[in-house]
Amino acid sequence: MKVALGVEYFGKNFHGWQIQKSGLRTVQSEVESALSEVANHPVRVFCSGRTDAGVHAVEQIIHFETDTIRTDRAWLFGGNVNLPSDVNFKWVKIVSDDFHARFRAFARSYQYKIHHHPVRSSLKADYYLWEPRALNVDDMRSAAALLLGEHDFSCFRGSLCQAKSPIKTIDHIQIDTIEDELILNIKANAFLHHMVRNIVGTLLKIGRGEKSVEWMSQVLDSRDRKKAGPTAEPQGLYFMKAFYEEI
Amino acid sequence: MKVALGVEYFGKNFHGWQIQKSGLRTVQSEVESALSEVANHPVRVFCSGRTDAGVHAVEQIIHFETDTIRTDRAWLFGGNVNLPSDVNFKWVKIVSDDFHARFRAFARSYQYKIHHHPVRSSLKADYYLWEPRALNVDDMRSAAALLLGEHDFSCFRGSLCQAKSPIKTIDHIQIDTIEDELILNIKANAFLHHMVRNIVGTLLKIGRGEKSVEWMSQVLDSRDRKKAGPTAEPQGLYFMKAFYEEI
Repeated sequence: MKVALGVEYFGKNFHGWQIQKSGLRTVQSEVESALSEVANHPVRVFCSGRTDAGVHAVEQIIHFETDTIRTDRAWLFGGNVNLPSDVNFKWVKIVSDDFHARFRAFARSYQYKIHHHPVRSSLKADYYLWEPRALNVDDMRSAAALLLGEHDFSCFRGSLCQAKSPIKTIDHIQIDTIEDELILNIKANAFLHHMVRNIVGTLLKIGRGEKSVEWMSQVLDSRDRKKAGPTAEPQGLYFMKAFYEEI
Repeated sequence: MKVALGVEYFGKNFHGWQIQKSGLRTVQSEVESALSEVANHPVRVFCSGRTDAGVHAVEQIIHFETDTIRTDRAWLFGGNVNLPSDVNFKWVKIVSDDFHARFRAFARSYQYKIHHHPVRSSLKADYYLWEPRALNVDDMRSAAALLLGEHDFSCFRGSLCQAKSPIKTIDHIQIDTIEDELILNIKANAFLHHMVRNIVGTLLKIGRGEKSVEWMSQVLDSRDRKKAGPTAEPQGLYFMKAFYEEI
């Protein structure tokens, strides 16, 4: 039997999603140990998209296999009782044997949140990138639009990336401003390692006027990570959703 | 010369506002040490309303006295450089010699945030009270309205309260619902120790149907802390604003 769950987490005190050989605290290790308690056997989970240290998830999707019969409530509430306060299950669903959290996801979406204000905010410090400088948001929107569609995104690919191909398709990219916040929403069939944070670091250079809108096309065409902007800080990034035919 | 500042803080890792003899980490001690650095002499600050361990501030108001001449930018940005990430100054203003952050405030406002959902949220854990049970929000609003105006609020007075009088005037109390959140806004000339959290604990008993709307009047008339509901958890509470003639 395959069981899928939605998982929310606050990334600050995790060394990312994936289990580390060194025994560092990761979301995967907490989730597997909580579900193993409920299942009464060791559980191995698969996620839709691994996240780095400090990155949050509003709804990461995972699945695991088990022969243990439990109600949905037992998986959900029993699992949450066994999890620390910075990670929780949101829902649970029995899925078909064909389901796979990683391989069956046809799209993922992320959000990146920027606190755009001259003075830093302690209440937002762990949830936003702080950007005190002036930004031309219209230029950032124009540059972001150049990323839409299928491209070779090697210029935004982190050195640890294990993806087979750097060619991905961005279906949606949008920047909204709400009071002193900039919210970037982005959806693609899949993402390379550090791709969203590298896009944000590049858009910020354009927003600040250090680079032109057209520079984005040059960066993209270069397929060279060294041409793009720096990797934006992790605490502004949220894994939002994974999309499946089945759920 | 008197200098006033707006102060924001994330309360989780502070033992409240006030300096403790035991040397525990408090907002006041961090703020005084940051300002003393900029002033180049020991600074003693006064705040508009002391907050307890775990309680946040969107805008606490403080003032201090100094003979040191600094620009507003030096107090603000120099101060923030000397503060840890969970507290920051928002603005600074030179005020008249008559100003006093505590004694000149004619009103204060607080907000209390409740995450109302069957499943807990790790991203909201440090910022909201979690309430999984069904709530009749209309009943909570009716009960809250009974608190408007001048009353003896002894029933909501914490045992450590140092206020001279339990008689206070609530000018405004409102409960809004936004998606799975309940937001209580309350404004009064002054608040007793634990008053907002005790009001919230009492309103929740009514919202859950454990007590009637009319019970609120009985609690208020009793002037007896033991008759009211429990003290709601600190992490949902935010000091929002203090009101002055001068600023």
